[in-house]
Amino acid sequence: MPLSPLAPAAFPDLPVIEGVRFASAMAGVKYQNRTDVMLAELAEGSTVAGVFTRSATRSANVLDCQAKNGKTQAGRAAIIVNSGNSNAFTGGRGVEAVAALCAGVSEQTGIAADRIFTSSTGVIGEPLPYERITAKIGELSANLSADGIAGAAKAIMTTDTFPKGSAAEITVDGKPVRIAGIAKGSGMIAPDMATMLVYIFTDALIGYEALQAVLSGLTDKTFNCITVDSDTSTSDTLVMGATGASGVDVTGNADFTAALHKVMLDLSHQVIRDGEGATKFVEIQVTGAADDADAKRVGMSIANSPLVKTAIAGEDANWGRIVAAVGKSGAAADRDKLSIRFGDITVAENGWRAPNYSEADTSAYMKRQELVIGVDLGIGTGASTVWTCDLTYEYIRINADYRS
Amino acid sequence: MPLSPLAPAAFPDLPVIEGVRFASAMAGVKYQNRTDVMLAELAEGSTVAGVFTRSATRSANVLDCQAKNGKTQAGRAAIIVNSGNSNAFTGGRGVEAVAALCAGVSEQTGIAADRIFTSSTGVIGEPLPYERITAKIGELSANLSADGIAGAAKAIMTTDTFPKGSAAEITVDGKPVRIAGIAKGSGMIAPDMATMLVYIFTDALIGYEALQAVLSGLTDKTFNCITVDSDTSTSDTLVMGATGASGVDVTGNADFTAALHKVMLDLSHQVIRDGEGATKFVEIQVTGAADDADAKRVGMSIANSPLVKTAIAGEDANWGRIVAAVGKSGAAADRDKLSIRFGDITVAENGWRAPNYSEADTSAYMKRQELVIGVDLGIGTGASTVWTCDLTYEYIRINADYRS
Repeated sequence: MPLSPLAPAAFPDLPVIEGVRFASAMAGVKYQNRTDVMLAELAEGSTVAGVFTRSATRSANVLDCQAKNGKTQAGRAAIIVNSGNSNAFTGGRGVEAVAALCAGVSEQTGIAADRIFTSSTGVIGEPLPYERITAKIGELSANLSADGIAGAAKAIMTTDTFPKGSAAEITVDGKPVRIAGIAKGSGMIAPDMATMLVYIFTDALIGYEALQAVLSGLTDKTFNCITVDSDTSTSDTLVMGATGASGVDVTGNADFTAALHKVMLDLSHQVIRDGEGATKFVEIQVTGAADDADAKRVGMSIANSPLVKTAIAGEDANWGRIVAAVGKSGAAADRDKLSIRFGDITVAENGWRAPNYSEADTSAYMKRQELVIGVDLGIGTGASTVWTCDLTYEYIRINADYRS
Repeated sequence: MPLSPLAPAAFPDLPVIEGVRFASAMAGVKYQNRTDVMLAELAEGSTVAGVFTRSATRSANVLDCQAKNGKTQAGRAAIIVNSGNSNAFTGGRGVEAVAALCAGVSEQTGIAADRIFTSSTGVIGEPLPYERITAKIGELSANLSADGIAGAAKAIMTTDTFPKGSAAEITVDGKPVRIAGIAKGSGMIAPDMATMLVYIFTDALIGYEALQAVLSGLTDKTFNCITVDSDTSTSDTLVMGATGASGVDVTGNADFTAALHKVMLDLSHQVIRDGEGATKFVEIQVTGAADDADAKRVGMSIANSPLVKTAIAGEDANWGRIVAAVGKSGAAADRDKLSIRFGDITVAENGWRAPNYSEADTSAYMKRQELVIGVDLGIGTGASTVWTCDLTYEYIRINADYRS
């Protein structure tokens, strides 16, 4: 798979988060000659919170994580993730697989099974050969290291063309607090809760309820505002661990929320930049809606429109398709108050093509790799920004033969 | 544009509907060297009913048709349709265009302007050069003929690769009643009321309210159950005229409803068979849902999933993507009661791959041109059947440069 043209120049230097160690290994779940399983261990006193897919057909791993989320006090914890098989729609065998993974990690690390979170990502409906993973847990435990996060980001990739990482640091009362996160995701991206797989770590001190509240709120403005192909996954999982090792209590700290927002937004944008077949990164800014929910409805209707996305792939300023996507969204809209712009170029306003519309200027703008589409509904103060990519031949090629 | 591989062998022999005459002409709205405007005239005593898009950004023509629908008694009527430009999002100039078309037809035919229905289909947001059409109305009026329906079906095509027609005949008390219809549509097909453009004619005797009720009810089971690309149009219009020339009153006649259902279903399937880039015709049968609305929600979620549609294009029996599409639909579902079949082959049941699943048999089935996907949710009696096509390179090619 060639590297996405939208990929960042390099994987970022992620800071060590005191209290978290990582390891990865080659278990051969599906892929050969690459790492496909990662283990993260969180030290004594860690808080863990999570956000998960709302899919009605979610995987055994997601159901197990949801059952565990918020049920225990701060303490040691672990996260084990494999790529190559999603363990979704695998019936009783899927439940057995999750139990075996948790038992294996518990045995090797001494962490209680109800503090062990698992994720699996890859093909749906094939039994997970979990014995291949449990056979590697001893090796993983022995290799845990504080600087293993980049290796972990690689081990969780499926159709991703680059590993995704992001970090932030704030200072509270002169003390540093660090956040580092990794993500994977490229197709089946229309998160209804969190995107495919995201793991974020911090040395901040924060209780479960405060962490969960911040995480859920920020998810709605980041991972729940991106879409590659409108297909919500069975496995979307975001787990965040706070070790408290910095000794800095960040409960209610706006700087911490802003720093975490930055990391989550960066990771969500990296998922779009690695959207299957993507050649354009598109930001859709909707304003003037009846309320924020309507604005997001309009944004997502545009972002999921195959006709808008193919026009962008073809560098065609076909704003009529944006009009159609607004119309079908179900949001309150008045055709004659609607205006549309590409970057700074107003292409339509007052229910008609803009008087000084220039096909040449607009076509030149469409050749950019990063595009901003602005839609003002002109009827209220609701606003929302969402992100997507274009729909290309390459998306079809990747997905017409994914299983084989 | 090469003929769709799913096209019917030939355009059907449509019966003459007494009281209806057709003409078509080359107005050069956008396309050159082909007909692009059609006029249909309905005789004294005709009832006209219609179903229209629910898009919030619907075209000036649709708004005008909706204002006229049901407002007048039976009498003479006309329908004028152009291809190449949708007259949608064209502001005051769009309203002016509709008024000019109606005035032109009224002047040439003597039919009252409030009995003249217009449709325009093609690119959105470009001013309609309506003078090119009004210049041809004299020619159209002079050429009206009872057997001009096949020519009319051709004149309304845009990216369609074949004209679409269907007919049915019933006998009531020994007297024949005939129905003939034409349609166009290939992309931007996810009708929220009726598909792109459909015109159906009958010599049955039926009042406006009865005709409208039958038409609306059947639309929900036909045109509202198809999708090519999930993109609802600004212009969807279905207009039906009943001339009463047979002298047979069909109010409340179940045979008439069944015959009309057959014509509407046939036309809606022809739209799918001409879906942009389509190589597979796919029927999705959903049963066992909590109610019919949930069943349709699941069916449409599968039919609109880019991942399901690309897998079908690749002849890959990737039923895990169907599981994901069920999960994201928002309908009530229980993973462990769900079963999925391809044709007669059960691939998944009881929340897991079917015990006797054969990859070879399923892969062989996927090579067919017509596929049936069955999904039983196992929790109720709700059922719905929807139709779609696959998503191919050709769809991208067609839509990446549609305007140019």
